[in-house]
Amino acid sequence: FNTTFSELPTTVFETMSLLAAKHQSTNLGQGFPDNELEGPASMKELVNSSMYEHSNQYPQLMGLPQLRQAVAAHSERHAGIPVDPQTEVLITVGATEALAAAFLGLLNAGDEVIFFEPSYDSYLPMVRRAGGVPRIVQLQQPNWSIDAGELEAAFSPATKLLVLNTPHNPTGKVFSLQELQLIAGLCQKHGCLCLLDEVYEHLVFPGHQHITLRSLPGMHDRCLRIGSAGKTFSFTAWKVGWITGPQALIAAVTKAHQFIVFTVPSAIQRAVAFGLDEEQSFYCGLGEALSRKRRLLADQVAALGFRVLPAEGTYFLVADFAGLLPGGSQEDDVAFCYRLTAEAGVTLIPVSAFYADRATAPRTLVRFVFCKTDEKLQTACDKLRAYF
Amino acid sequence: FNTTFSELPTTVFETMSLLAAKHQSTNLGQGFPDNELEGPASMKELVNSSMYEHSNQYPQLMGLPQLRQAVAAHSERHAGIPVDPQTEVLITVGATEALAAAFLGLLNAGDEVIFFEPSYDSYLPMVRRAGGVPRIVQLQQPNWSIDAGELEAAFSPATKLLVLNTPHNPTGKVFSLQELQLIAGLCQKHGCLCLLDEVYEHLVFPGHQHITLRSLPGMHDRCLRIGSAGKTFSFTAWKVGWITGPQALIAAVTKAHQFIVFTVPSAIQRAVAFGLDEEQSFYCGLGEALSRKRRLLADQVAALGFRVLPAEGTYFLVADFAGLLPGGSQEDDVAFCYRLTAEAGVTLIPVSAFYADRATAPRTLVRFVFCKTDEKLQTACDKLRAYF
Ligand SMILES: CSCCC(=O)C(=O)O
Ligand SMILES: CSCCC(=O)C(=O)O
Repeated sequence: FNTTFSELPTTVFETMSLLAAKHQSTNLGQGFPDNELEGPASMKELVNSSMYEHSNQYPQLMGLPQLRQAVAAHSERHAGIPVDPQTEVLITVGATEALAAAFLGLLNAGDEVIFFEPSYDSYLPMVRRAGGVPRIVQLQQPNWSIDAGELEAAFSPATKLLVLNTPHNPTGKVFSLQELQLIAGLCQKHGCLCLLDEVYEHLVFPGHQHITLRSLPGMHDRCLRIGSAGKTFSFTAWKVGWITGPQALIAAVTKAHQFIVFTVPSAIQRAVAFGLDEEQSFYCGLGEALSRKRRLLADQVAALGFRVLPAEGTYFLVADFAGLLPGGSQEDDVAFCYRLTAEAGVTLIPVSAFYADRATAPRTLVRFVFCKTDEKLQTACDKLRAYF
Repeated sequence: FNTTFSELPTTVFETMSLLAAKHQSTNLGQGFPDNELEGPASMKELVNSSMYEHSNQYPQLMGLPQLRQAVAAHSERHAGIPVDPQTEVLITVGATEALAAAFLGLLNAGDEVIFFEPSYDSYLPMVRRAGGVPRIVQLQQPNWSIDAGELEAAFSPATKLLVLNTPHNPTGKVFSLQELQLIAGLCQKHGCLCLLDEVYEHLVFPGHQHITLRSLPGMHDRCLRIGSAGKTFSFTAWKVGWITGPQALIAAVTKAHQFIVFTVPSAIQRAVAFGLDEEQSFYCGLGEALSRKRRLLADQVAALGFRVLPAEGTYFLVADFAGLLPGGSQEDDVAFCYRLTAEAGVTLIPVSAFYADRATAPRTLVRFVFCKTDEKLQTACDKLRAYF
């Protein structure tokens, strides 16, 4: 079997969700909203009516024209970046497929790919499986900052692509203009492409702002941006994403898309098009709602002795549990998460799962998800309080 | 950009459908049923109710338990092959993703993959992109038969996988027990795996029978079988497929699935589960209905001078148009299909598109799709009659 893939464990998100189900614990692990917080009912109605009013046969390879149009309008409206719906937008099976299609469509054997760690757990294996050579740069605690020297040192004549995820999973970091300028300068100096995983673009807390690297001078023609209906409308089961960028890059990604899925269910595409056009208040309100939920969770876990790391967006909260361990304990984050699931009835994700090499990963950080009802967040906090 | 993919044209199916739309021609090209022939309304209703009655958040990586259960029951019912829904079934984004995940999950660089030509147009590029080395064996006209010596010669110590598509696109061939025995013997002798693309398993004409290679002695543990809800229920826009096989092989494919799409829209999965359990009469009736449509088309195009090749299943008809060309004409199938679209108002697919090397491909074969209303088939025949 393929050696890159077959050595890997099942994704930590699935593993922890299954464990949570087994222990009937409160699942603040895998990143998905509670049912009560799901997207607009009007979008579900659109899925339904589309199946009756429109064809249930193959939509176009690149996606339905009206969804590509809606994604283009969304790009212009929120990022100030106009894109041509005919040639600069590809609809994908969620952001996961957009990432896979980009790696498979852009990379040749030996091409180097720079990304930051911690990172979403598909980057490393997909880069490798596509023939790329990962060049990983560590974000530095406590603020997950970039060491400019380390970043510069990661570039080489073989650098083909830099992947940037902002707002960032798992840290909740929203990269600042200064950081983006540093990255942009290096990408231009070394002439590489950029793949921007911006699925949490609307999940930014009041007072902070998501800036896309593509908007910086000199970056427009080298950047692909990925968005997600699952994250934007809190329908993670819908599996619709998009990727926008210069025509030549989109064409290359489309070639891979053609052979890995060919196309995306059309009724859901119609509903997402409707949502982007008509349900903007849903996703524009997410940042504020989530920031309140974060405070609810952060205050209580801090009171328990967790050291809560700062964040500007996403629905993830990272905290250090070192202060909760008995003196001399060597328990790592994985063991801690298993113990909490079994004994406290609360499931979290160990942050070391976002690192290629667990040996150099932080060992006392866990990720909480807080796109949950206030009741569920309170239940989790109560269980943790009772346990510690 | 990736050299395997970026040199390829857009898939012929999309290209010809766009051309058909441009010329407002009768599209008998890309393989999808007319809206009038789509699957049961009860399944659309299930998509709708599922979105209200169930979570719209990530289903399990391998697919919803009830769909895996329904696929397992379907496998036992129709192929006589029981599979464990927990470990031997993976739900995919259509058969295209099942193929891609199998190639990416099973192959390492240099692994040889045998398949027959003509072949579906994703096999060759996906095998290559996954690091595999294609070993193509030509099916021989007029009956698309296998030359046993040529097949045997394709095997080597590096052979990892044989891909078999039966019922076969584009020829409509249903491989016979004798042919399957030949293939099975060689696969066992050389110890390779088999990937069975059986998406047209229910589209077999009365008097003929689909046999899966997995049912032959010694084959059970080396075969993966791919099925498709799009083909089985005539909902090609739904993009749900499945792959069944031994646990170790499914685990390897699941690793790739995890990183290329992660999961499949859940409401559609529920509807397909319902369809497999409760709407068996739909797909059990397809073979007979299609065989009648094939006759309707075949009789008329034969009368026009096409030489219709025999077939036992699918909704594809292959015919030779050499007899329709003026003496001395060198027009090939691609030019013929463009001319027919523009001048006769009927769109077909050139069969050379199913060959890696157009130089050695048959040059006067075209593929008609006949999963269309009788009226549309008649319109196409009338247009062709008026034109020739
Ligand atoms: C695709 S499952 C993981 C969901 C997610 O993005 C996360 O939990 O980080
Ligand atoms: C995925 S588009 C092609 C549909 C099809 O299977 C065919 O026309 O052969």
